[in-house]
Amino acid sequence: MKKIINEPENVVKEMLAGIEAVHPGLRYLRGYEVITRKDPDRRKVALISGGGSGHEPAHAGYVGRGMLSAAVAGNVFASPSPDRVLAAIRETAGESGALLVIKNYSGDVMNFEMAMELAAMEGFKTASVIVKDDVAVPDSTFSTGRRGIAGTVFVHKIAGAAAEEGQALEAVRTIAQRVADNTRSMGMAMTPCVLPAVGKPGFTLGADEIEIGMGIHGEPGIEKTSLKKAGEVAETLCGRILEDLDYAGREAAVLINGLGGTPLMELYIVAGEVDRVLRERGVDPQRYYVGNFMTSLEMAGCSVSVLRLDDEMKRLLDAPADTPAWKEFGL
Amino acid sequence: MKKIINEPENVVKEMLAGIEAVHPGLRYLRGYEVITRKDPDRRKVALISGGGSGHEPAHAGYVGRGMLSAAVAGNVFASPSPDRVLAAIRETAGESGALLVIKNYSGDVMNFEMAMELAAMEGFKTASVIVKDDVAVPDSTFSTGRRGIAGTVFVHKIAGAAAEEGQALEAVRTIAQRVADNTRSMGMAMTPCVLPAVGKPGFTLGADEIEIGMGIHGEPGIEKTSLKKAGEVAETLCGRILEDLDYAGREAAVLINGLGGTPLMELYIVAGEVDRVLRERGVDPQRYYVGNFMTSLEMAGCSVSVLRLDDEMKRLLDAPADTPAWKEFGL
Repeated sequence: MKKIINEPENVVKEMLAGIEAVHPGLRYLRGYEVITRKDPDRRKVALISGGGSGHEPAHAGYVGRGMLSAAVAGNVFASPSPDRVLAAIRETAGESGALLVIKNYSGDVMNFEMAMELAAMEGFKTASVIVKDDVAVPDSTFSTGRRGIAGTVFVHKIAGAAAEEGQALEAVRTIAQRVADNTRSMGMAMTPCVLPAVGKPGFTLGADEIEIGMGIHGEPGIEKTSLKKAGEVAETLCGRILEDLDYAGREAAVLINGLGGTPLMELYIVAGEVDRVLRERGVDPQRYYVGNFMTSLEMAGCSVSVLRLDDEMKRLLDAPADTPAWKEFGL
Repeated sequence: MKKIINEPENVVKEMLAGIEAVHPGLRYLRGYEVITRKDPDRRKVALISGGGSGHEPAHAGYVGRGMLSAAVAGNVFASPSPDRVLAAIRETAGESGALLVIKNYSGDVMNFEMAMELAAMEGFKTASVIVKDDVAVPDSTFSTGRRGIAGTVFVHKIAGAAAEEGQALEAVRTIAQRVADNTRSMGMAMTPCVLPAVGKPGFTLGADEIEIGMGIHGEPGIEKTSLKKAGEVAETLCGRILEDLDYAGREAAVLINGLGGTPLMELYIVAGEVDRVLRERGVDPQRYYVGNFMTSLEMAGCSVSVLRLDDEMKRLLDAPADTPAWKEFGL
């Protein structure tokens, strides 16, 4: 296992300490593995997300003005415990309450919801949105129902902008839910990844084999198949997404996400093909985001997320944001 | 070879077409493999850079307000021809002329300088800066003298800000040269990368072997050694950099660059260690940039670049920029 780390058991703590060292606007709450904005404005709704580590820049990379108030980190590919989530709420929420954005994995849902109960006992007002954007499989290894993957970042951006402009908890929850309801994603993987504490790949793929619909923890997808061209990959991923939700004649925001080990060159080739497919099918792509947004350590592969836009979502998507991994000037 | 591409011989064209499709402010000059700002302001100095492809986001990712006017792409790891560079000058330069930022590789230097001669015959005023930031080796496979690597991005950012605020060619050249003179970089690699047209790795490293000082095309470094901890990697890279230039008591900007296949988790762990080492040695790191800035396709590894700041550089580093790969709000 070739990784630039120190002790495998310390990777999460050392990563979070590194994030704090280099980003002056962020604070690392040691012992709870939470990254928060240094000076959260507690008059506004706190937007909190998180999950297992290994998906960087998700989620700490989205903490900052216009997006998250705090990100809670679990161990690599493991849900953060309720006390960590509770700590994030305590550190960032005030009278306006907190909205928790949860990716649909059983552990995450259980632990975030338990934290909400604990927070309620301390007088905090909370609400939650569960993101289930991955159309690949109806149930999966770690989830009942669809998995939450990279489309979750659209929820962070848009709900974060709503919270930043002072909208109330119910309004922020409503728009976050609407983004979740209008986002579909699907991915493919070409190589496994190696968990630092395990030291070897969690599964194998043949030399010319890829897996369509694989999850961000290496969970099985729809099929293992031979290597495909970028055009075919775009057709397959977009095809499943467009089958699942009617985007015809609608404006869309599109995220072309790398899983960590795929060069940006390939992501842009995929982006060109996705643009072609979407336009052929009558979708009107208005915004593109290309890069590593929600990764699986060094896995090679990509996912495509498509958000069906309305005017409010579009306005909030374009609103200013200043975080390590998403910056937006505002229009 | 597992890559999400179509035909290996078309990767550069398809990548550039993808960049144009998703970034509305950029234009792809077909036939010349140049990405330009859609509406370059020809009253200002045009800032032009480029080189072989495979280093994305370098260089097209830095085209936009406050950075480059145009980026010229060669084939993968191959210098762009003079006619391509000339096309970039024609498309973006006016009476204020153009500054060419060249990484020190023999092919790049020859072709960019030939383009300057051709441009002069057409009446264009040009100047150039050659970046030689890699302290690893005195001469290398493709260079006489030190190689130009990720520290080049500091030149793009600072000279781009100077050009954007309307400074004259000689002033932009002077500050660009000062940034180049005050930047030192060094990298390490853990895996090779595969050129699409070749289909197999260009070299091999043992299962627990890394190479210190390797170049961004896989050129040999200082030594092959066993895998090291992140702390040791930071000590080695920073050690060589600080030996080469006196940063003691000085403010610095630091770029922690991933080579394409290294997870952001590891880059942040390295960043934390670099921060520790620099502070121990009396350097005052004022700005950090962590991510994939100048890659080698899917190579695993990283480089560290340290710029010794003065007040003007710091101001220009913080000036607004809006490009796909570097956004700055301005302070």
